[in-house]
Amino acid sequence: MRALVYHGPKNVSVDEVPDARIESPTDALVRITTANICGSDLHMYEGRTDVETGKVLGHENMGEVVAVGDAVVKVRVGDMVVLPFNIGCGFCKNCESGKTGFCLTANPGSAGAAYGYADMGPYSGGQAELLRVPWADWNALVLPDDAREKQRDYTMLSDILPTGYHGTELAKVGTGDSVVVYGAGPVGLMAAISAKVRGAAEVYVIDHQPDRLKLAETVGATPIDDSAGDAVQQVLDLTRGEGVDAGVEAVGYQAHDHDGAEKPGITINSLIQVVRPTGRIGVIGVFVPEDPNAEDDLAKKGRFAFDFGTFFFKGQSMATGQANVKQYNRGLRNLIHRDAIHPGVIVSQELNLDEAVEGYKNFDARLDGWTKVLLHP
Amino acid sequence: MRALVYHGPKNVSVDEVPDARIESPTDALVRITTANICGSDLHMYEGRTDVETGKVLGHENMGEVVAVGDAVVKVRVGDMVVLPFNIGCGFCKNCESGKTGFCLTANPGSAGAAYGYADMGPYSGGQAELLRVPWADWNALVLPDDAREKQRDYTMLSDILPTGYHGTELAKVGTGDSVVVYGAGPVGLMAAISAKVRGAAEVYVIDHQPDRLKLAETVGATPIDDSAGDAVQQVLDLTRGEGVDAGVEAVGYQAHDHDGAEKPGITINSLIQVVRPTGRIGVIGVFVPEDPNAEDDLAKKGRFAFDFGTFFFKGQSMATGQANVKQYNRGLRNLIHRDAIHPGVIVSQELNLDEAVEGYKNFDARLDGWTKVLLHP
Amino acid sequence: MRALVYHGPKNVSVDEVPDARIESPTDALVRITTANICGSDLHMYEGRTDVETGKVLGHENMGEVVAVGDAVVKVRVGDMVVLPFNIGCGFCKNCESGKTGFCLTANPGSAGAAYGYADMGPYSGGQAELLRVPWADWNALVLPDDAREKQRDYTMLSDILPTGYHGTELAKVGTGDSVVVYGAGPVGLMAAISAKVRGAAEVYVIDHQPDRLKLAETVGATPIDDSAGDAVQQVLDLTRGEGVDAGVEAVGYQAHDHDGAEKPGITINSLIQVVRPTGRIGVIGVFVPEDPNAEDDLAKKGRFAFDFGTFFFKGQSMATGQANVKQYNRGLRNLIHRDAIHPGVIVSQELNLDEAVEGYKNFDARLDGWTKVLLHP
Amino acid sequence: MRALVYHGPKNVSVDEVPDARIESPTDALVRITTANICGSDLHMYEGRTDVETGKVLGHENMGEVVAVGDAVVKVRVGDMVVLPFNIGCGFCKNCESGKTGFCLTANPGSAGAAYGYADMGPYSGGQAELLRVPWADWNALVLPDDAREKQRDYTMLSDILPTGYHGTELAKVGTGDSVVVYGAGPVGLMAAISAKVRGAAEVYVIDHQPDRLKLAETVGATPIDDSAGDAVQQVLDLTRGEGVDAGVEAVGYQAHDHDGAEKPGITINSLIQVVRPTGRIGVIGVFVPEDPNAEDDLAKKGRFAFDFGTFFFKGQSMATGQANVKQYNRGLRNLIHRDAIHPGVIVSQELNLDEAVEGYKNFDARLDGWTKVLLHP
Repeated sequence: MRALVYHGPKNVSVDEVPDARIESPTDALVRITTANICGSDLHMYEGRTDVETGKVLGHENMGEVVAVGDAVVKVRVGDMVVLPFNIGCGFCKNCESGKTGFCLTANPGSAGAAYGYADMGPYSGGQAELLRVPWADWNALVLPDDAREKQRDYTMLSDILPTGYHGTELAKVGTGDSVVVYGAGPVGLMAAISAKVRGAAEVYVIDHQPDRLKLAETVGATPIDDSAGDAVQQVLDLTRGEGVDAGVEAVGYQAHDHDGAEKPGITINSLIQVVRPTGRIGVIGVFVPEDPNAEDDLAKKGRFAFDFGTFFFKGQSMATGQANVKQYNRGLRNLIHRDAIHPGVIVSQELNLDEAVEGYKNFDARLDGWTKVLLHP
Repeated sequence: MRALVYHGPKNVSVDEVPDARIESPTDALVRITTANICGSDLHMYEGRTDVETGKVLGHENMGEVVAVGDAVVKVRVGDMVVLPFNIGCGFCKNCESGKTGFCLTANPGSAGAAYGYADMGPYSGGQAELLRVPWADWNALVLPDDAREKQRDYTMLSDILPTGYHGTELAKVGTGDSVVVYGAGPVGLMAAISAKVRGAAEVYVIDHQPDRLKLAETVGATPIDDSAGDAVQQVLDLTRGEGVDAGVEAVGYQAHDHDGAEKPGITINSLIQVVRPTGRIGVIGVFVPEDPNAEDDLAKKGRFAFDFGTFFFKGQSMATGQANVKQYNRGLRNLIHRDAIHPGVIVSQELNLDEAVEGYKNFDARLDGWTKVLLHP
Repeated sequence: MRALVYHGPKNVSVDEVPDARIESPTDALVRITTANICGSDLHMYEGRTDVETGKVLGHENMGEVVAVGDAVVKVRVGDMVVLPFNIGCGFCKNCESGKTGFCLTANPGSAGAAYGYADMGPYSGGQAELLRVPWADWNALVLPDDAREKQRDYTMLSDILPTGYHGTELAKVGTGDSVVVYGAGPVGLMAAISAKVRGAAEVYVIDHQPDRLKLAETVGATPIDDSAGDAVQQVLDLTRGEGVDAGVEAVGYQAHDHDGAEKPGITINSLIQVVRPTGRIGVIGVFVPEDPNAEDDLAKKGRFAFDFGTFFFKGQSMATGQANVKQYNRGLRNLIHRDAIHPGVIVSQELNLDEAVEGYKNFDARLDGWTKVLLHP
Repeated sequence: MRALVYHGPKNVSVDEVPDARIESPTDALVRITTANICGSDLHMYEGRTDVETGKVLGHENMGEVVAVGDAVVKVRVGDMVVLPFNIGCGFCKNCESGKTGFCLTANPGSAGAAYGYADMGPYSGGQAELLRVPWADWNALVLPDDAREKQRDYTMLSDILPTGYHGTELAKVGTGDSVVVYGAGPVGLMAAISAKVRGAAEVYVIDHQPDRLKLAETVGATPIDDSAGDAVQQVLDLTRGEGVDAGVEAVGYQAHDHDGAEKPGITINSLIQVVRPTGRIGVIGVFVPEDPNAEDDLAKKGRFAFDFGTFFFKGQSMATGQANVKQYNRGLRNLIHRDAIHPGVIVSQELNLDEAVEGYKNFDARLDGWTKVLLHP
């Protein structure tokens, strides 16, 4: 089969590789119809991780089931399914309690596994014609009849929509709340959509890229342009000085200041300022335990100077981590099915697999108008 | 009336001051029978805060109601009551939603008020013969018939028992959980008692003072002596390498390393290590937004180098802040009344008000055997 | 002042009565701008309760503060406020824990008080020029600048919108859920709006009155006409036989079968059928402990034949009771302020106080098009 | 292998039957070391159900794993395991969300499956030498090294301890609460233990059998003898007329009045009386949708006259259903392992499999001192 393979920093190609296949009685085999390129794929593409060369990338996958193992009973051949990017066993302590992003079985010695991802286990990705899905009855979400026509929406269930929603769950967004989302990238936009789904009254999305701020407005949020002045102060002004009830971090450790220097703590410390006393902060932007190539010494060790005194004094809480996709994907699927949300609105490019190399290059260059790229193998 | 007055660093005296009195129709006046000295009183005593001279100290108070204002309907003269250290109005957004430690009315411009405390509003403390209690129907918890005989236990309801419990609530301790508590001071010991109340199966309390570790054992916890080797490793060894489900920080910004140097982040970063992926951390040790006399530059600004990459990678959560005493004091009162818990077991000295100066001096010196001091004005 | 007074079954009039006034330091006096007639006012009007003659009715009130007692600090003269129909003290065990509909202080010997209502304490109603508001800082919700222009929406915060929302809270409606609401009266319609606010994907509203079913559609729900066939079966058919995740009862003990006979249990037992195993049911329609004039012996004692075996076998839960308005009114106010919801869409008549007698008569007759009546004294 | 087989009402025998064996790659085979007789086994024994003849009974099972299927990765041969009585797939909508007692896969067309039980699917029971365990990685709980020595305690994890705990979860028992448990049978006693684990301050257990009331006292509860006067009134007297915060029903549809007549609603309606306004009721006693041999017409249809008016007026909630054992068994296992609880204290008889027939007979006769019977095949 053909697949997008990582060969080194900024070096990927579409190669012929051995077909994915059923390896265990609990597996399913899926013919990929859509695999998205994710912002975190770019971490690997840029050589910021220790992902092994030869790895097939792609953790945002959906497609049609073409074979199942002997022990698979729920998922059937012919089903259209979307796969959570995190792979779980379904029966470890974490999977059982809904922490499906932190499976203790799928990637022994760590907590959490994923398709085609650095340090997340030996699983191939789905930017390929076929994908092996372990523990398929647990991992595959079956889609309704409109799966193919709403593919741009449903494909968001593999990662960024549940991840955005996770941010609002971690921040306990509820009816009538005011919310700040840091970052109007795909995940931040999904967090904004999710905040509205949960009944937020005011959603402020902070970024400086005009096209992203425009999308923030499209999904019903108030865009805050932080190149136009201190974003914290802008939001304080809009909330009678009180700050907001909840905040979501959707940028991660590669946050930059206005001069383009990486400042891993800048969004977190800003959220501590802008969220009101007793407020909650959800962190879904990726932070890494080690970043050997970082600019400053703290960042190399995955640390930054955290405004802890203010955090404590305000009695805030902060919850973090990759999304437990399975906690949310059923409910969000229902909303898409009922036309209540349209996350696919952020899709900017749809390419076939052969165009994937070009797609990576342009997406990594943050070319204007490259917001979210879908591949159709 | 006589009261313990702050005159400057390490300078307090018992003076004659004007009687506390009813100032608003919603006030009550309480004749103090017990007022405890709290570890956080020592922050003021040592000159680490900007508390004004002339302030009557004391935020852990209980006593008998001797007068009530015209609008007071629940609390009656003659009632024995214990007062939460935090003063709330009962009707602001925070009080209403149970965040009673972050009242927006009682200390305008800030969130949270307290008796006799730096930066917590103009309220006199209870290390005195009389105490004015604002919004008495909201703030006073009426005690049952055994109030006087169990005074050593009930007086813990003013602060440290609910504060310890708050730590376990912030860390969401539940049935069968394993828990680490950093610090075997009074608050840490109360957190250990609280963890047992909430059904924890294993409670590890980390400290290096033998008398405190002994008390940890008395309240049913497993003492971990961090002077005998790396505490994180000790707990990992006791938990098959998995770490614990939940952690409570009960030390605060004055945490020291083994050489006696203040290291504000040392306990937090250790908790991030020892708590398992998806685990929860509750922070009740006090951290301050500014500490001008701190040793290093970050600490001066209330910051420290936080292990954020690991925190995120493990998908942990952290919740902080002073206790919302009223959320917990009814339930804990019932447990004392029914002899289910005996928090008074940690009381080491009971002094009359005239001995208070000596009490402050010895408690501040961390003299052996000075764990918790009660004053009986 | 002029006020609507109850004189006996189907006998009310607008009379001159003594002015409402400040009676306690914690009171406020409100000049009523809008007071709604509620379906439950009709219970009294029809003589189904033991409300005393001479009572001023009206528990859905908003207006302008014209005076406050000495101990009132939050609410100010000139504020536009909306009052929860339930009166609470703010400091009893129930008020403190958010169960503000079950105050133990305001109506001694019972749990819960209200303005102008049978068995809910000695408080006059607001279908009058002036209203005394006890514990005003607790009970009054201050409205923003658009209070007068959005009066049709904000007045819904006094009762039916939070009551509808309470139904969805009791039924734990969440993201992507399917929900059935029994009854498309004002409260049922508010429950439908609330279910959408909480992220429900499918909301079915069951009724037989065409105008109400039409309104259900207007607020984004799927109308189910139970005069067109078994409503339970209709919903099962629409949900692949699975039933719904959650149900809300918004009819009450005066539920009728198709022949017009009162059948108090008919909606509850239908919900047990239509809600799926492990589903939740919230009951906000009013049921009474005694109904001496009821048709059958069980109903006289407030009982009915409950399908308990099925309820247990399906592992369902049911939560009930009048709304704790204060739990919800802040958040819902914010949504109105931000134009996210428009509950006033159900208002059918706006009358001045002198037209109130006619209003009661027509509303009680369930005249076509009389959905929700506002009085403007 | 030898197994206890049902042949008809009051007719069971220990027969030679075909060995249980691995049938699917996800199965495990367990050599039973302990299988308890449950009160609900007596429903079948007495002919109150439509269980098929030839069925091997036994749903409270523990033992040693002797074989596993190809897809089993967590459970290993040699592991000592305890099996939840309910069988789940681990991946249906209900299993996924923790409602593991209501699996939609294991017993198609219904919600919930179990070993050796009427209407709960085609699964053989464990009152036998060997047991087939489907979806073993999901269903088996692995026990620590002390599994054999604490078998009397750990075997309670298969059903009655988690079931008792479920009652306290459904009733949301928390720190300092007062609780009533109806029924001092094995499940009621486990509910009492669980209420203490969750921090209840007062636990009242109602029954009339002296030996059971004695055990209630042993586990730390206050026994209430309802043959000595109205139990509701006794508890009201002990709670200053307020009633309790929470109630647990652990009797079921075979509740009797003092004259020995079955009154299915008697405990539920009593709980509505004795639980305070806003209180919660958890129902774990079994109620059935149909009971053709019941004495009255309502009971035949699984109905009774429910005090709904009072239930609503008090704003109570009620949650029901068989326990989701997997939600609780890990945490409770930890408490047994750490000697924090000793549920085995209620065991009255330990028999070998050949004595099972006699065991059923005596247990069904409710012979004095026959509280809980273990079989060791």
